[in-house]
Amino acid sequence: MKKIAIITITVLLSISLYAQSDVNTDSVKIREIYTEALKNGRSYNWLNQLTKKVGHRLAGSEGDKNAVAWAKAELEKLGLTKVWLQPVTVPHWIRGDKEEAYIKTKYGKFNVNIRALGGSIATPKKGLLADVIEVKSLEEVEKLGDKVKGKIVFYNRAMPAERIETMSAYGATVDQRVYGAAVAGKYGAVGAIVRSMSTKIDNVPHTGTMRYGDIDENQKIPTAAISTNGAEMLSNLLKQKGEMELQFYFKQNCENLPDTQSFNVIGELKGLHFPDEIILVGGHLDSWDLGEGAHDDGAGVVQSMEVLRLFKDLKIKPKRTIRVVLFANEEFGLSGGTTYAAEAKKNKEKHIVALESDAGGFTPRGFGITSNDNNYNQILEWKSLFEPYNIHIFARGGGGADIGPLKNQDNVLLGLKPDSQRYFDYHHTEVDVFEAVNKRELELGAASMASIIYLFDQYGIK
Amino acid sequence: MKKIAIITITVLLSISLYAQSDVNTDSVKIREIYTEALKNGRSYNWLNQLTKKVGHRLAGSEGDKNAVAWAKAELEKLGLTKVWLQPVTVPHWIRGDKEEAYIKTKYGKFNVNIRALGGSIATPKKGLLADVIEVKSLEEVEKLGDKVKGKIVFYNRAMPAERIETMSAYGATVDQRVYGAAVAGKYGAVGAIVRSMSTKIDNVPHTGTMRYGDIDENQKIPTAAISTNGAEMLSNLLKQKGEMELQFYFKQNCENLPDTQSFNVIGELKGLHFPDEIILVGGHLDSWDLGEGAHDDGAGVVQSMEVLRLFKDLKIKPKRTIRVVLFANEEFGLSGGTTYAAEAKKNKEKHIVALESDAGGFTPRGFGITSNDNNYNQILEWKSLFEPYNIHIFARGGGGADIGPLKNQDNVLLGLKPDSQRYFDYHHTEVDVFEAVNKRELELGAASMASIIYLFDQYGIK
Repeated sequence: MKKIAIITITVLLSISLYAQSDVNTDSVKIREIYTEALKNGRSYNWLNQLTKKVGHRLAGSEGDKNAVAWAKAELEKLGLTKVWLQPVTVPHWIRGDKEEAYIKTKYGKFNVNIRALGGSIATPKKGLLADVIEVKSLEEVEKLGDKVKGKIVFYNRAMPAERIETMSAYGATVDQRVYGAAVAGKYGAVGAIVRSMSTKIDNVPHTGTMRYGDIDENQKIPTAAISTNGAEMLSNLLKQKGEMELQFYFKQNCENLPDTQSFNVIGELKGLHFPDEIILVGGHLDSWDLGEGAHDDGAGVVQSMEVLRLFKDLKIKPKRTIRVVLFANEEFGLSGGTTYAAEAKKNKEKHIVALESDAGGFTPRGFGITSNDNNYNQILEWKSLFEPYNIHIFARGGGGADIGPLKNQDNVLLGLKPDSQRYFDYHHTEVDVFEAVNKRELELGAASMASIIYLFDQYGIK
Repeated sequence: MKKIAIITITVLLSISLYAQSDVNTDSVKIREIYTEALKNGRSYNWLNQLTKKVGHRLAGSEGDKNAVAWAKAELEKLGLTKVWLQPVTVPHWIRGDKEEAYIKTKYGKFNVNIRALGGSIATPKKGLLADVIEVKSLEEVEKLGDKVKGKIVFYNRAMPAERIETMSAYGATVDQRVYGAAVAGKYGAVGAIVRSMSTKIDNVPHTGTMRYGDIDENQKIPTAAISTNGAEMLSNLLKQKGEMELQFYFKQNCENLPDTQSFNVIGELKGLHFPDEIILVGGHLDSWDLGEGAHDDGAGVVQSMEVLRLFKDLKIKPKRTIRVVLFANEEFGLSGGTTYAAEAKKNKEKHIVALESDAGGFTPRGFGITSNDNNYNQILEWKSLFEPYNIHIFARGGGGADIGPLKNQDNVLLGLKPDSQRYFDYHHTEVDVFEAVNKRELELGAASMASIIYLFDQYGIK
């Protein structure tokens, strides 16, 4: 009797192991994942909590602390193997009072909307009034050299509308925001105003990080983003400058405080067969201090949490260890990601796959993939499994800022690629709020992430 | 000298004809189309005018007349070969005063949002109060038979969230809206309330067409859509009906007036080589009487106009005749489309291709195609030309309601397939307004339409 039972179990086990490497089983399982995410998904409700109860959560802020506590508590409710916090040193910049700005002409003052860039110093207390020089690139400032002395440099190169992927258009212009002040300051400019990184013409300024690099302390100048409408107005008025006697005024009292502490929030489901092979899924928990960080990156946070929730509620026992990491401080220098990778190295952890969602909670279109040829080709073999879900982009390159430091020659980094058209309507602004996210689009993203994680859990990497 | 000139012209012509059937030329031309649509597109501004200056435009309404005048005037500005109006007989239904509805219980009244369905009769002047019976299908009412007598039938089958394409989820539930009142009326029900066709849970009722068919005049009962939130509340309260003494009240004074006249608005660019081969691109100019008809189908209207604008401004001289048709009355029985097809038949016009955009102004994903195998395979050969623009769906079946009557065994019907996730957040409601449309998504749709029209103009059909 006992022998029969053992044989039966062995046969059943073999059948079950065989079935698990079957394309039909995979396609059934993936269909279950999408159905569960769309019918009983938790991601949208989590996003509602994170955006409305916690709100924005810049590294080092009160919101950041609340976000860490919220995420830890929610992960703990999922019944994972383990949930923990990993300390991370983060910068602490505060915006201070709402910024003020206007274009001064002999016909009067025109108010415009600006927002200080993250890391910028303040203007003098009474603000800063100076002549303006419009440029389209850092190179142009290098050429102008001393001619920018005493002036406010106005970077006004628009994101190229003709690029199909807005991320590519962003990449083609964001150097103005990151390095604009440093380059202008080097030549004696007194301030730098940067056209907002947006594909939309409106009154909403887009903040974001900037860096002074290694310039002298006295070369550091205050810098802010101006709304695209404001930029168009300033540029148009500058064309009539001779008559206009145009000057620009802005005031901001932001401040860089000493570094402080935050945490990566981590949870995992231990693998049954290969517990040392870690498959990571994550997003970043911090956000800018405007709006609610709904698309950037509340969406990625709740989608990553949903991946583990789907495994739990669909009773998928992972072969490998599935770990969710909600990274601290992506926006302000990536210390969450670098700390995580350094700890992983120190502990000799083996991350075979890492998937990040940090491009908004829009309809998923596919994945960006950084891997060797073998693993890339393995993913291409899964392509047809994703066809029913309109997932069609399997592009080489990509991943995510936070997981970048984990890259080695063997593993696979993945980035979820949602439709990019609306991303820069919201990115780093006060309008990046819960209401800007569509429930189904968010859920489809979570299901796509869970599906590819499921496949990597089944088959590992090559 | 003259001879040399003629030879030169002949050689140049041959080169140019050769070049036109070249894949590289096609890919360059398509890139030009997308660039022009994204950098200098007119569709978004047109949509702004149509939604904000004209507003909603139900067949037979004042808005309908204004829309016809606006569209004709705008097409005339484009410098097409010809612009004209084609008379169409349209029904004339008016909504009357804003509807009222509440759930009456012994604990008090709970107001809910409803909107009369298009074509419905009014309730008695003081409204209608009756017991409610909840059902999930027409078949259920057929089975209940006389048990619905004197009651309000509440159709509450939700759109199935697990379907990836929301259009498919709509198709699986809309019979309740179209035929619900006719079936319930046949068995003596006094009213029919239908859960809104939406994938979202909110307070916005979605109107839409309904049909009494051939039931007796005295079997016709008033019918309205209830918001999904209202439907959930009603259903939950019904579960405690015994204690609740629940009844439903609604009041509407909509009315069917005599048929009236509207117009298909038509413009064309005459073809240089095959003027008798017509390639049609269109959408429908009418909309529901709520909101501004921005996605349904303002988007399709302005995208179709933009196709001809792109041909003009890019100086593409069509070989075949490219005709834009802005159809009258799609929403209320399709008389614009049927009139157009009947006239085309009478005039022995040869429509080789017809493309409709009537699924919202969202990021385009591809096309639905109704054609013979040869033409379908021809389109598949063009697939790689669309890859840079993330156009990946080339599905069999589809087209559009307005162009359906043009189908014959030789020609090709096409429907633009935009991403469908958000469509039923807006469809037939007060929130289908200009602000719900993203400029880039709209423009990408127009460019995709112009590109496939360009290819059909170059190569014709097989």
